[in-house]
Amino acid sequence: MKGMRLLVHGGAGAVAREVGAAGGERDYHQALATALLAGHGILKGGGSSLDAVVAAVRVLEDTPLFNAGRGAVMARDGRIELDAAVMDGDGLRAGAVAGVTTLRNPVSAARAVMERSPHVLMIGEGAERFAREAGIETVPPGYFATEPRRAELAHARERRQHGTVGAVAVDANGRLAAATSTGGIADKLPGRVGDSPLIGAGTYADENMAVSATGTGEVYIRLAAAHELAALMRHRGLGVKAAANRVIGQVYRLGGSGGLIAVDRRGRYAMPFCSDGMFRGVIGPKGRPRTAIFT
Amino acid sequence: MKGMRLLVHGGAGAVAREVGAAGGERDYHQALATALLAGHGILKGGGSSLDAVVAAVRVLEDTPLFNAGRGAVMARDGRIELDAAVMDGDGLRAGAVAGVTTLRNPVSAARAVMERSPHVLMIGEGAERFAREAGIETVPPGYFATEPRRAELAHARERRQHGTVGAVAVDANGRLAAATSTGGIADKLPGRVGDSPLIGAGTYADENMAVSATGTGEVYIRLAAAHELAALMRHRGLGVKAAANRVIGQVYRLGGSGGLIAVDRRGRYAMPFCSDGMFRGVIGPKGRPRTAIFT
Repeated sequence: MKGMRLLVHGGAGAVAREVGAAGGERDYHQALATALLAGHGILKGGGSSLDAVVAAVRVLEDTPLFNAGRGAVMARDGRIELDAAVMDGDGLRAGAVAGVTTLRNPVSAARAVMERSPHVLMIGEGAERFAREAGIETVPPGYFATEPRRAELAHARERRQHGTVGAVAVDANGRLAAATSTGGIADKLPGRVGDSPLIGAGTYADENMAVSATGTGEVYIRLAAAHELAALMRHRGLGVKAAANRVIGQVYRLGGSGGLIAVDRRGRYAMPFCSDGMFRGVIGPKGRPRTAIFT
Repeated sequence: MKGMRLLVHGGAGAVAREVGAAGGERDYHQALATALLAGHGILKGGGSSLDAVVAAVRVLEDTPLFNAGRGAVMARDGRIELDAAVMDGDGLRAGAVAGVTTLRNPVSAARAVMERSPHVLMIGEGAERFAREAGIETVPPGYFATEPRRAELAHARERRQHGTVGAVAVDANGRLAAATSTGGIADKLPGRVGDSPLIGAGTYADENMAVSATGTGEVYIRLAAAHELAALMRHRGLGVKAAANRVIGQVYRLGGSGGLIAVDRRGRYAMPFCSDGMFRGVIGPKGRPRTAIFT
């Protein structure tokens, strides 16, 4: 039980602007805490880190405040395309979906790909069909597009928006898992896929650590950022904090911005970012959620 | 000029069976040599490794013998879905497409994503539209489905087929590049994406090395195999041969099979595989193509 820990993030985009448009920070802290408690309830009962990260991400997907599931940003054509991934460090099992438009909780579709298909990544209509047959809940497209997001599309051409939600956890057995879900970037070209659903880019977990990233996805892909963090720990012997800081430094030097959350098998963790803020939170064995937005 | 080198592969699937069905090895050796000479012509003239790998992969895509472009295998619904990626180690630039159905040379679409969009990965219809607008050549869907592949679909449900083509090169300036292209695995669920178009999984290049992989894609994704090779060289100080062998060992231990081609900035290279064979070839400064299929 000692190292049991769960971290969540809700993106590291133009955080100050988002908070301002939403009329304050309170709702964000509350939503992050709700996600942390959902995951913690599972860990406390002896559940797996995999169950915990999926539960936490589902809460964040259902919250219109964040750019994932309900509340996702729109592509240039006004449509919403959702991506998600999940990885179980135990056995390096992974699943992901990209470009889905009708699934309420893309993270659960990602889990279905991992557990009920021979594949890791499924995209578009094929992914939707597979998920429906696996019993994943569908919703009408209008479900995702909350009013603030519609207004935002008009502004986005001037200022590109991104954002993601994610969770990482270590359970009582020292088993690690990560999950990430996103609506991508506002005004993106239809068909664009970022780092979130890509194993090794925005999401990774192995026997040492779990990581979920958020930020300018293209930079995270080019760096294979999530796997780079794993590699720095395994091959250089860095601790999770030093490895996380180094990866964010690489993101920054390549012209990117954003952050990540990462945890190791003993419950040590890091939440670095190079942006004006990152919606984030952590909960440990005592079950007290701590959340933060700015530095 | 000294280290200038280009490697190609044409997959590491059920090689013996493919060669048997095609009536012998000769056509494969010839096609691999043609691809090597196409890339070498560019390197010899002072061209970039990026131009060379794209030229070589285009030759392999146009050859019906390999599972990429013309000759690609079909998904369970009888359709063909193509994936490709390209990466320029200089600046870690990358581009990729997945699930495209009308582009004659997916590798050129991947390059267009890298050079003419702000994105790295584009999928499905959005990718097709972008590529058409970028002037990438389209063909009717029937173009890809050569007769032997139609017959193969019937057998594939018993024995899963995969295969990929790829190239890696270092040019006279020590600049590295990698490209990979595939039709995926026969009888795959529609929407499945393997490692080939995923930066860090089937394709990677940085300032030290370039790699293109082929095999059971899901295992390569879970290992972030291409980036793992880069990490073993950068963080452990391994040479390209030792790093390549270690990655293939990891693939094998995780239940996968296949191979990879990799080259470093001094022209040292490796082409390991754990399967009954791998269509492969190498050409150096002297311009003499050497090709091989079995051990």
